[in-house]
Amino acid sequence: MSVEFDFNFVPGLPVGKWSGFPKYNFVGGHNDAEHVPVDALIAAATSVLKREGFSLATYGLNSGPLGYRPLRDFLVGKLKSHAGIACEADEILITSGSLQGLDLVNSLLLSPGDTVLVEQDCYGGSLSRLSRRGAKVVGIPLDSGGLRIDVVANALADLSRRGIRPKYLYTIPTVQNPTGTIMGEERRVELLRLSRAYGVPIFEDECYSDLIWDGQRPPALYAISNGVGVIHIGSFSKSISPALRVGYIVASWDVLSRILALKIDAGSGALEQMVLAEFCSAHFTEHVLKLNRVLRGKLETLIAALAEQFGTAAEFEDPKGGIFLWLKLPDGVDTQKLAQVALAEGLAINPGPEWSTDKVHATTRLRLCSANPSKEVIRQGVARLAQICHREFGVPTRIANIKRG
Amino acid sequence: MSVEFDFNFVPGLPVGKWSGFPKYNFVGGHNDAEHVPVDALIAAATSVLKREGFSLATYGLNSGPLGYRPLRDFLVGKLKSHAGIACEADEILITSGSLQGLDLVNSLLLSPGDTVLVEQDCYGGSLSRLSRRGAKVVGIPLDSGGLRIDVVANALADLSRRGIRPKYLYTIPTVQNPTGTIMGEERRVELLRLSRAYGVPIFEDECYSDLIWDGQRPPALYAISNGVGVIHIGSFSKSISPALRVGYIVASWDVLSRILALKIDAGSGALEQMVLAEFCSAHFTEHVLKLNRVLRGKLETLIAALAEQFGTAAEFEDPKGGIFLWLKLPDGVDTQKLAQVALAEGLAINPGPEWSTDKVHATTRLRLCSANPSKEVIRQGVARLAQICHREFGVPTRIANIKRG
Repeated sequence: MSVEFDFNFVPGLPVGKWSGFPKYNFVGGHNDAEHVPVDALIAAATSVLKREGFSLATYGLNSGPLGYRPLRDFLVGKLKSHAGIACEADEILITSGSLQGLDLVNSLLLSPGDTVLVEQDCYGGSLSRLSRRGAKVVGIPLDSGGLRIDVVANALADLSRRGIRPKYLYTIPTVQNPTGTIMGEERRVELLRLSRAYGVPIFEDECYSDLIWDGQRPPALYAISNGVGVIHIGSFSKSISPALRVGYIVASWDVLSRILALKIDAGSGALEQMVLAEFCSAHFTEHVLKLNRVLRGKLETLIAALAEQFGTAAEFEDPKGGIFLWLKLPDGVDTQKLAQVALAEGLAINPGPEWSTDKVHATTRLRLCSANPSKEVIRQGVARLAQICHREFGVPTRIANIKRG
Repeated sequence: MSVEFDFNFVPGLPVGKWSGFPKYNFVGGHNDAEHVPVDALIAAATSVLKREGFSLATYGLNSGPLGYRPLRDFLVGKLKSHAGIACEADEILITSGSLQGLDLVNSLLLSPGDTVLVEQDCYGGSLSRLSRRGAKVVGIPLDSGGLRIDVVANALADLSRRGIRPKYLYTIPTVQNPTGTIMGEERRVELLRLSRAYGVPIFEDECYSDLIWDGQRPPALYAISNGVGVIHIGSFSKSISPALRVGYIVASWDVLSRILALKIDAGSGALEQMVLAEFCSAHFTEHVLKLNRVLRGKLETLIAALAEQFGTAAEFEDPKGGIFLWLKLPDGVDTQKLAQVALAEGLAINPGPEWSTDKVHATTRLRLCSANPSKEVIRQGVARLAQICHREFGVPTRIANIKRG
């Protein structure tokens, strides 16, 4: 197979071969392997296939292009009780993960050169998608209460003066990625007021919102706006399984009917939708409660390991939910270099600049995910990271109260 | 939710609400509902989840971005024995249906304005995708032996004289959609010779190739070329279930590594891949043998009903496999109008112009799919179609040997 053949590719770089997960894996939205509800998923698969397996013979089962109806029915109830969203099953489109939701909404709204507003520290997959589409990205800083609405107001006023109307403002208001913040209700109301004043829709991504320790959260932006001017996406990746690739878009029919016209994949995977619907109707609430205790325990292990190994050299807030920490290391640390060196030693982190619109601000920052590694691996990995960081950048200088050698 | 909000959409039309399948459904690659192997799928789901369910906690299971390794291993064997393809597991990428394969290959190779060669009568979803991307499509006619290679040679020579090198030639060589033809080995060899002479890669779509009555088929183009200059796609939609959305791309690593860089969906659905791998390793050959007998029986019912209801007014060849017939009705019939009127009466057909690059040639043609409706529905539906066609266009004039009233 070594003969050359000129395929005349559209420009782009190839990827390397996959060689397995790194030993200390602090990246990716992976979940805890021991707490995948395997037995209940087997029971769900068995019962739903016995009842409706014949319907696998048709594209879209018997539910049409929006996705398996019982899953959309479950979501109607969950979105109401969890996020305050009043919607109908026909205002929900099941997608192949929330990533397909990102792609579809971007296809609906963005042309090259369009401007969008995003949280300054932001999910890397959203930023890379905007970059691929040639969008101009304006980052808005966050504080411990989430997106800074005062800066949103200034940015919108400034853009408006320059004749620019952003295509949307993208936000992860509830357990923000990577900061873990939850935007309060007052800010949400004010954000929607600005959205209407400037005619800039809100693109609300709630893919982490099920993972909140005390379960308390403000209503979704979609709920407060009653669905007007907001597109909402979510996912089962974090609450059940990332490998399943099931997410959803909530939007009014005038929007969803246009998104549906762009979803030319002949439907998302039916078996996963069927099994999820069957499982979630019976077990979702109980499963998420249990999972959150596990995830909180792992995050506490991460926090304790960081306190021991980095001391005051690692600054972060203790988030109210989620599976990651957003750390600041001392000035002088370059987390992109740190990530590169660490990966060569079997330890993976997300360097800040890949997760932020402000590369300078993010140079000393990084994201660590704690859901997948065991507590022992978390402890070992953080110790390893501190060693590497000390070797490369001279910090942290102490382990607990002992000077690092 | 009726307040107006200007989302400033990228141009495009919305779709209407889905209102269920039509009563007489002769469109779509749906399969026979009674022959979905439900019990074996339940057993497969149970055993694979018991063994590996924990791995649902990680994106891509433990197999990396190419897809579930046991499914790729199964495909290595199946592609070898079935299509003569010698490839390794790392030359196979599992996709969310072969439609994602189409999208990825198009993303890899096509820019707006590029020229591609396709079979003149061709899968509508491929044609609409090319149209969306602004490609210039050159249709090559077929005969009962498949793609006419003499016309390919002329088209390539002509384009070459005009300084145009097509980005690829797209073909469904084995159970072509919609003609049902199988391209013979001699033509395949000659097509590859032309492909090399002009530097035009082949994009080979084999999504129907498992459905051949006698199981006999020539080697895939990918096999004959030893993977050089050919990208091959396939699917489990037709052999197992269309709702599962599992397909694959076979390509040499230099090509696949670039396709993989474009697959930014965090993997295709894992549960479907796991269940398929478990099921197929044990049952694929036996299941497809049985399924083909069922599909042949339904196609024979369709052929008999057409003979009775349309007589010589419906011209078609009896295909060697597949789930559809490509019919020619008498001149004067407009199948787009026929499709529109029939749909309003609960009967769906694919009008020829949506399935062809030559709208005039295709005006009198249509595709009828027979895998999904029951034999009774096939008979009733064909009778209904003949009635409608007679009412609208005056043909067919007879039912069997009785003049139509």
